Amino acid sequence: MKVLITTIPFGQVNSEPLDLLDQYGIEYMINPLNRKLQPGELVDLIDDFDAVIAGTEQINQDVFKKAKNLQFISRVGIGLDSVDLNSAREHGIRVSYTPDAPAPAVAELTIGLMISLARSITKTNNDFIQGSWERYFGYRLSEMDIGLIGHGRIGKKVISHLKAFKPKNIFINDIDSSKLTKLDNSVISCSKDYIYANSDLISVHVPLTLETYNLISKEQITMMKSHAYLINTSRGGIINEEDLFNALEHQVIAGAAIDTYEEEPYTGKLSLLNNCINTAHMGSMTVDCRANMEIEATKEVIRFFKRETLLTEVPEIEYKAQILFGKSK
Amino acid sequence: MKVLITTIPFGQVNSEPLDLLDQYGIEYMINPLNRKLQPGELVDLIDDFDAVIAGTEQINQDVFKKAKNLQFISRVGIGLDSVDLNSAREHGIRVSYTPDAPAPAVAELTIGLMISLARSITKTNNDFIQGSWERYFGYRLSEMDIGLIGHGRIGKKVISHLKAFKPKNIFINDIDSSKLTKLDNSVISCSKDYIYANSDLISVHVPLTLETYNLISKEQITMMKSHAYLINTSRGGIINEEDLFNALEHQVIAGAAIDTYEEEPYTGKLSLLNNCINTAHMGSMTVDCRANMEIEATKEVIRFFKRETLLTEVPEIEYKAQILFGKSK
Repeated sequence: MKVLITTIPFGQVNSEPLDLLDQYGIEYMINPLNRKLQPGELVDLIDDFDAVIAGTEQINQDVFKKAKNLQFISRVGIGLDSVDLNSAREHGIRVSYTPDAPAPAVAELTIGLMISLARSITKTNNDFIQGSWERYFGYRLSEMDIGLIGHGRIGKKVISHLKAFKPKNIFINDIDSSKLTKLDNSVISCSKDYIYANSDLISVHVPLTLETYNLISKEQITMMKSHAYLINTSRGGIINEEDLFNALEHQVIAGAAIDTYEEEPYTGKLSLLNNCINTAHMGSMTVDCRANMEIEATKEVIRFFKRETLLTEVPEIEYKAQILFGKSK
Repeated sequence: MKVLITTIPFGQVNSEPLDLLDQYGIEYMINPLNRKLQPGELVDLIDDFDAVIAGTEQINQDVFKKAKNLQFISRVGIGLDSVDLNSAREHGIRVSYTPDAPAPAVAELTIGLMISLARSITKTNNDFIQGSWERYFGYRLSEMDIGLIGHGRIGKKVISHLKAFKPKNIFINDIDSSKLTKLDNSVISCSKDYIYANSDLISVHVPLTLETYNLISKEQITMMKSHAYLINTSRGGIINEEDLFNALEHQVIAGAAIDTYEEEPYTGKLSLLNNCINTAHMGSMTVDCRANMEIEATKEVIRFFKRETLLTEVPEIEYKAQILFGKSK
């Protein structure tokens, strides 16, 4: 049994996943390019591997056609936009993921980005590097109406952290209306347009599908307040990067914090703006969350090879969603 | 009645304090240098002003000797290290301050700096500016033992925010042991040395006095863990800047976030380090807190001129503390 590990880094902060593979006599190869695979590269690497422990690289028909022995994909993370689920099924390939592990780390980074934006932390730090001293006024979260799009695992954790800061209001919406039942009384259910027009800070926590691709583009940004901040720690492509750049350049909104990009590693123009905080898809990159994701994904591979019941196999609704809304690209 | 307003900015985000002065026919002049006054400059400006609405500039005997009419100092903020209280008293000058207003804003900036450090937000943002993409591992606050020195207004608010992130432990100490009674069961009272040696993140929330001047110097930093982070949003001088620079340069600790400096505006070497986040004494610089501070300080001036009871006159204990521990400089 041979496993290709494409996600990078792997086994670095905690060697348990590699130890587990060794212990069960499972042969493995870690992504020799040591970065996210570009389309085509996985096709060249897949050869006779039986399973992939996967990152966010595209895994589609091109890969499945070339893969002689592939039976199982174990995604380290929650997003499934990179995997053509129905094509995998046609090739008899099962898919698991780790939907719970990343949420706490993503939620906490989101709060950090909110305060960094609201208090000009990165901007002032850059001033210091340039040798200048300027004191910017900021806002406390308690002075703000905060709008969240997405009431799933991550959105809910963001809300629970936010409550300790007592925002004026927390507005909530989701692309999946079933996620808007059982709201607690600290949040207000609103339309997306209401959120765009009335929030001082907007943060997006939805998966990337055809439905959410370019969910926030020029039209939506134009509705926002001129002092509004916008945060994306979910997936690149949900906010249109070109439209965001133009809006920030012309101060249509006050600022943005972006952790995820349509193409990663990102090399675009957002890095040039001093009202945009950029981080490198690090939402889940805490020692504990990353270790949990890698360990869960590895254990699922071991269960698959031992023919045990899978614990986090991708549910049917995700296959249907890809039929309804397609994948993003 | 003439008031000199030395603190900058003033009346900028909210004109109410200036409106109040106008309404009561009080003449005022705002600091014409538009920056923190250096020693000597207030001496030149004080002339026949009856009251000062003061920032953090030094107000001492040199000023009092020169001031023909000065009867009242209203400090916009909580720190009193800049005011020679007992000398003011000898000259018959009363002093008020605004001890409560800044705390929520300082506490929130502190949490933002904690997450910025723990998740390499400024560091990654700087990588983007340099055109590079690197994904750093970080820590969640829930993975950390967090040590706080100071259980006053700000320290307590930091604790209440931190609880929402469920740190492993919150260690607490204070220079004033009377502040360590009535601890709730989410915190553990420890010696300062225990905190230095055992915390993953240390944040300081004490006033600047002779007792706290250089409280954290080489000896204390050497006790810290190599992955520890250190935060100062209280007053410059409490952490020895030269020792901190050396420690960060040689990675004795992992990083620091500094909002306050011995000399402000700060022009020192900490800005050169990519493991130091620097902000420009912006702890209280939120629209709501700053407005509250300015309004409270102004109302106190009006009460003084109207011979009404002062509401936030500096308490006797602060005068005694300056006799016991002196001022910092």
